[in-house]
Formats: sequence, structure tokens, C-alpha cells
Amino acid sequence: MSKANHTDCSSAMLPVRDALDVISGKWKLIILISISSGNHRFREIERSIGKINSKVLAKELKDLEEHKLIKRTVYDESPVFVEYTTTPYATTLGKVIKELRDWGLNHRKEIIGK
Amino acid sequence: MSKANHTDCSSAMLPVRDALDVISGKWKLIILISISSGNHRFREIERSIGKINSKVLAKELKDLEEHKLIKRTVYDESPVFVEYTTTPYATTLGKVIKELRDWGLNHRKEIIGK
Repeated sequence: MSKANHTDCSSAMLPVRDALDVISGKWKLIILISISSGNHRFREIERSIGKINSKVLAKELKDLEEHKLIKRTVYDESPVFVEYTTTPYATTLGKVIKELRDWGLNHRKEIIGK
Repeated sequence: MSKANHTDCSSAMLPVRDALDVISGKWKLIILISISSGNHRFREIERSIGKINSKVLAKELKDLEEHKLIKRTVYDESPVFVEYTTTPYATTLGKVIKELRDWGLNHRKEIIGK
């Protein structure tokens, strides 16, 4: 394989890096899965994921909103409440999540042997 | 969509979380792309990625080796040198990298408008 110089490599890397910047970290895709599984309130999302700190969840929800992957709706009722829903754009991550899930299942068998 | 309780969610999340644990962070997939593009020496990999700190690269290479995604070979010549190559197992990440790249290309257009 010819030695790819800096430019060849970074052109292949840039889009992957863009994607990783959006979904990086342990939680973002997990939060999207939770919301798309029907958990729309902060506490529901938090409970469905288990070991996530509220501050971290709040920050990740904000990032996901900025990347237009979720929508935050405030219901001005009594009491006021907030719900999170995935946007149509979030469905474009469907294939990424599927391939990660398939790879994760296989990795568990391959490496962890369970 | 019925409200997924904690168990339904975590069974969908676990394999994705397993995969993210392996490839998490900004660098692991980028390093794999660099090595599979023909960069096998530490300095080559470092130069091909650009903004990565040597200590971080050393740690990520060690992690990738532990997850059986790359192989480290020491050539006992004069001077001694070390080369990194991707393992057959690393090719199983091909689909994940493809989907991330396609999503990243689209995201750039959608969000960044370039």
C-alpha cells in the first residue's frame, strides 16, 4: 500500500473526524437511542441510561440540540415541563448506530467471549 | 412509541456502548485510517494525523493493540525499529468507518454548509 501523505490521509479522515466530533464521547448515541425509544423527560432519559450524572446529561442534551439531532420543547402548563424529541435529521444516524451495534455485538463475542 | 423501560433501553444500548468504548475519543479511528493508508512508523502516523500529541498517540496505539485492532512489531535490526499494522480483525470496522464518513460528509453540507 503506497505511503499516504498527510493530505491523502486527512481527506479520508476529515469526514470521519466531523462525525466523531458530533457523536464523540460515551453518551450521545446512547441518549439518542433512549429518546427514540420513547423517553422524553430528563428524569426518564437519565433513568433509562443508568450511570450518567445529571450535569453531564444536561450538557450532552445541549450539544445534541446544537447539532440539530434533538428538539427541546417547553410546555407552558402548570407545572411547566420540558420534553426532548429526536429530529428527522437524527434518523440519518440510523446506519451508523446499526453498524456500531452489530460491531459491538460481534466484539463482545470476539474479545470478551460472552 | 411505547415507553421503553430501563431494561429494553440498555439491551439496545449495550452493544453500541461496547463499540463506543473501543473506538471512543477523537483519535482511534483516525489512527486506524492512517495505518491502513500505509503509515506504519510512529512518526509517520503522527505526521499524517497532524494535531496529535505524542503521549496521546502512544496511549491510543496501546489501546488499539489491546483491542486486537493493530499489531506492534519490533524489528531487531540496527537501529531497532517498531512498526504498526492493522490486524484482520480491524477490517471488521470497515462498515462503521464507511457509515461515519458518509454521515460526516453529509453533516458538513447540512450543518456547516461547506
